Amino acid sequence: MALLTRIRGPRDLDRLTPAQLAALAEEIRTFLVEEVSKTGGHLGPNLGVVELTIALHRVFASPRDRILFDTGHQSYVHKLLTGRQDFSRLKMKGGLSGYPSRAESEHDVIENSHASTVLGYADGLAKANKIQGHKDRPVVAVIGDGALTGGMAWEALNNIADAKDLPVVIVVNDNERSYSPTIGGLANHLATLRTTQNYERFLTWGKEALQRTPVVGQPLFDTLHGAKKGLKDFIAPQGMFEDLGLKYIGPIDGHDLQALESALTKARGFGGPVIVHCLTEKGRGYHAAENNEEDRFHAVGVIHPETGLPIKSSGKDWTSVFGEEMVALGRERKDIVAITAAMLHPVGLAPFAKAFPERIFDVGIAEQHAAVSAAGLATNGLHPVVAVYATFLNRAFDQVLMDVALHKLGVTFVLDRAGVTGTDGASHNGMWDMSILQVVPGLRLAAPRDADQVRAQLREAVEVADAPTVVRYSKGTVGPAVPSLGRIGGMDVLRESGESVGDRRADVLIVSVGAMATTCLEAAELLAAQGITSTVVDPRWVKPVDAALPGLAAEHRVVVTVEDNGRAGGVGSAIAQALRDADVDLPLRDFGIPQEFLDHAKREEILAEIGLTAPDIARQVTELVARLEKAEVQA
Amino acid sequence: MALLTRIRGPRDLDRLTPAQLAALAEEIRTFLVEEVSKTGGHLGPNLGVVELTIALHRVFASPRDRILFDTGHQSYVHKLLTGRQDFSRLKMKGGLSGYPSRAESEHDVIENSHASTVLGYADGLAKANKIQGHKDRPVVAVIGDGALTGGMAWEALNNIADAKDLPVVIVVNDNERSYSPTIGGLANHLATLRTTQNYERFLTWGKEALQRTPVVGQPLFDTLHGAKKGLKDFIAPQGMFEDLGLKYIGPIDGHDLQALESALTKARGFGGPVIVHCLTEKGRGYHAAENNEEDRFHAVGVIHPETGLPIKSSGKDWTSVFGEEMVALGRERKDIVAITAAMLHPVGLAPFAKAFPERIFDVGIAEQHAAVSAAGLATNGLHPVVAVYATFLNRAFDQVLMDVALHKLGVTFVLDRAGVTGTDGASHNGMWDMSILQVVPGLRLAAPRDADQVRAQLREAVEVADAPTVVRYSKGTVGPAVPSLGRIGGMDVLRESGESVGDRRADVLIVSVGAMATTCLEAAELLAAQGITSTVVDPRWVKPVDAALPGLAAEHRVVVTVEDNGRAGGVGSAIAQALRDADVDLPLRDFGIPQEFLDHAKREEILAEIGLTAPDIARQVTELVARLEKAEVQA
Repeated sequence: MALLTRIRGPRDLDRLTPAQLAALAEEIRTFLVEEVSKTGGHLGPNLGVVELTIALHRVFASPRDRILFDTGHQSYVHKLLTGRQDFSRLKMKGGLSGYPSRAESEHDVIENSHASTVLGYADGLAKANKIQGHKDRPVVAVIGDGALTGGMAWEALNNIADAKDLPVVIVVNDNERSYSPTIGGLANHLATLRTTQNYERFLTWGKEALQRTPVVGQPLFDTLHGAKKGLKDFIAPQGMFEDLGLKYIGPIDGHDLQALESALTKARGFGGPVIVHCLTEKGRGYHAAENNEEDRFHAVGVIHPETGLPIKSSGKDWTSVFGEEMVALGRERKDIVAITAAMLHPVGLAPFAKAFPERIFDVGIAEQHAAVSAAGLATNGLHPVVAVYATFLNRAFDQVLMDVALHKLGVTFVLDRAGVTGTDGASHNGMWDMSILQVVPGLRLAAPRDADQVRAQLREAVEVADAPTVVRYSKGTVGPAVPSLGRIGGMDVLRESGESVGDRRADVLIVSVGAMATTCLEAAELLAAQGITSTVVDPRWVKPVDAALPGLAAEHRVVVTVEDNGRAGGVGSAIAQALRDADVDLPLRDFGIPQEFLDHAKREEILAEIGLTAPDIARQVTELVARLEKAEVQA
Repeated sequence: MALLTRIRGPRDLDRLTPAQLAALAEEIRTFLVEEVSKTGGHLGPNLGVVELTIALHRVFASPRDRILFDTGHQSYVHKLLTGRQDFSRLKMKGGLSGYPSRAESEHDVIENSHASTVLGYADGLAKANKIQGHKDRPVVAVIGDGALTGGMAWEALNNIADAKDLPVVIVVNDNERSYSPTIGGLANHLATLRTTQNYERFLTWGKEALQRTPVVGQPLFDTLHGAKKGLKDFIAPQGMFEDLGLKYIGPIDGHDLQALESALTKARGFGGPVIVHCLTEKGRGYHAAENNEEDRFHAVGVIHPETGLPIKSSGKDWTSVFGEEMVALGRERKDIVAITAAMLHPVGLAPFAKAFPERIFDVGIAEQHAAVSAAGLATNGLHPVVAVYATFLNRAFDQVLMDVALHKLGVTFVLDRAGVTGTDGASHNGMWDMSILQVVPGLRLAAPRDADQVRAQLREAVEVADAPTVVRYSKGTVGPAVPSLGRIGGMDVLRESGESVGDRRADVLIVSVGAMATTCLEAAELLAAQGITSTVVDPRWVKPVDAALPGLAAEHRVVVTVEDNGRAGGVGSAIAQALRDADVDLPLRDFGIPQEFLDHAKREEILAEIGLTAPDIARQVTELVARLEKAEVQA
């Protein structure tokens, strides 16, 4: 790493020779494979942008010229070139973030990790530059072909194309995939630009035109054919981008440093919006990644650097439980179809896709379309299951509300990676869904506590034909089954206090949501050790609030709710409201995630930090009960 | 109306002669002007689609062939042709909805009224048809050029273009505007198709190509020029749509019935996705509308049918108070910029745009881009004010959260038409914002109660540089000023009980949100008549909950919250949580909009129906206080 360690900032790249730059690229690849193998991380995307990132930092003057990365998982090389070379604690508490982070560097701008936003930022930054008299400062937006399928990219392109004098350089990092190969008409168009250099397409078109214009005859085709070389540069821009008003440069070999620098320099000098179309290979230079057809090592856990195989295999995870049950459901019901937003494998729908290729739809990174096309499918009598990460459902909130719920359609949304997910940082935690979905009329929301419940509740969800249903579960390994001792209303009783005083069952009613069941049972044990009795129930369906809950609550002195979701407007708030509406005015305490953006760390570390653990809950409930007893004695 | 009254359903159109059809179109225009003048409604858009709707219903067999209208405000003609000709109570309780309504007719499919969704539905419906063996059934989606600027349209186009065998007919109703003229690269491209018929552009391009290919010389241009007529049909499709893989037919004169029928028939037979580009004129045939440059009578109140002038002018509305203050702020602070999503006039930004043309951005019907480009502007130090209808902010929820709040950027969102808006139906009520925004870390939310507070709180909002701020207010005429008697913490005291018992100020603390102040003061009067004392406060900023609120609440026996927002997770829930967190365990009752989709009716009718009135609130609080007193006596 003789060269890499000498790079302290982008300007250190200026004095390197072409040979040194090539060697640097090799060093960076070696570094990435070695380091990311140890910690896990987004390996494939970063291996694909080594040369591109070097070229960007040689041609543009960050941070004056803003270099923006869409989604941000491809920013490792950028980090290495901007003074951040300690990857030993990547994504861990106190270590480097897995995404750009403004706290880390002045060279980082966007840290949201949700896709397709970069062009919108670029539009705003460029407009601000103009207003502030810095019209000469280019704004560079790096976006994958996958992220271009998102509607936000279109909205931004439409605006950028209108601002003829804004120096926005749109670098399309075209590796033909997001997690999986990119879908849709745009992907086909990019493929056309890629494979035919466009002018061949023009010639075909000219030939066809000719056949339709017999009065002109052969000369037209010949003329065009003869003009081939001269036309090439001119014709390349004749794609849809230029129809929008965007200059197009490309396609460029994204691993040819000199070609990249030349194209970016041309783009920098253009003075208006311009697209630079770069062809890159995800996982480039690492055979284990290049040979992986599923996702080219998009994101890996800890792996063996030479074989690329996972070091430790974890137990059964929530995702695969869902994936298996979907295949079983697909066999039983021909009306069930599935939708993924460019994440077939990560959400567990690959087995379903294999079994029922006609009934799976990958819509691209387009959660809005996932929800609305599901509404269309349901309108015609099918039952779509839309599987997305919990945090990404935010993108489709309006569609769940207006297109599915208002229309009383049976669509099931399955939210993976709900709750505190940890190392991917603030924007990946699935801590919003159980709050914002509370407002959706008619929507039913399930939070299964174990694998059996995932299967059972998914089946219950797809039975609902006249309203949206949601099944949300955690990331990673699913814990052991948590048995039910019986039912009260629709709620599973996980613990009975075993004793009752007067018309009281126990001191405390603990309402456990989803995977918090184990924590709640532990808290109940700790309370019991303090002489405080408790009942623990899992409502299974947390929206609407179970009709039996207020009555059960009234048999206790205190109600406690525990959820792996932001506290504001969450399940605890909904239960509190249901109790008020039933005139059950009991003290209630709602435990959940504080309404803050959480720094990256392991899930367990975060839960300890925010006090979402059995000892913390037990301690606070003990204090509350003591205070209530003191007040009763005084009264 | 000799012809119109004989049309009971679409098939009644089949036997009319061309002359009769032309006469029918005239009858429909007369009907629309006469009827909508009396009730108010979306006049301009419907005058523009008379011939188009007739042609659609002649060529396609609704409801077997699905005819979908984006947004739905242009469905009046469709209603007239599908058995709904009593417009006397349009948009009124019990009368016809102003949008498609599945309760009204089997010919209606989408009733969401939020723009740009129709292509997503069409994609889903067509895919379902295919799975169900009805591949021959076309799905027809009517979408305005304005709505094509929305990202959802792009996501759907990208998918539809990929499904080569699905008979989706996309009818682009191109009137060059949504509310206002459509913006962006797409609009420019449509204009190219429209004005030059595209082949002229091709000729220019050929000329330029010629100059770059001197080896070929003059013959190329001459050849192309000679080929003009023959090439026309072929070249038209060479736009961005065909680059995506979509067949293009057009442009078609949208007021020429025969041309429309011919184009639609061709599209119907195509068997794959196809765009039919129709040129229409908003307000067509009604001079008052045609001559209105602002919005061509997009939506009108009750007007004089001949002059088009409003029958009664209302008092000052919330919107114009905001609009005036923005101009004042723009003069004082050069860093303030404004963003509208295709609704410059409706949200009151026209005066700002006139005063500061360099600092206003119309982003199209693209709320996501409004929020993200605002994040970009704010990153470079400007303070954007994004003004949208409250219900449309749902579209940008993820962007407010991830792009503005996570990045700690100072962006102000101004939400007009918040709360129950009434006659536009379920999807126009702004009853979601104060709930979903509760989850956004750091966001501050103001609900001004009168015009003075709109001005004051807007000014406070734009002072915040490190977090999103929101100012939300009602639709229509703003009521008289509601004076403050003083401050407790940041809260305005609107009523003091005037007496205190022990450490109690009064029986009830009423927390009033925004425009509910008058209702709350009336409720307090009614309570006083029952011997129940109350304090009324307006927190002004409802998020975060004022730090002084729990202490103040503790000086009362009961807390009541009143908000013009859905109850689930709203301000009442947030206050209840703040009280719990402060160990203030008092009975609380939260009044707001029940979490349901509300049928169209006047605001006052809806408020009465949902019990959000002073007598209803007073009655329930009286009962609660009586119950508490009884319990105290028993204890």
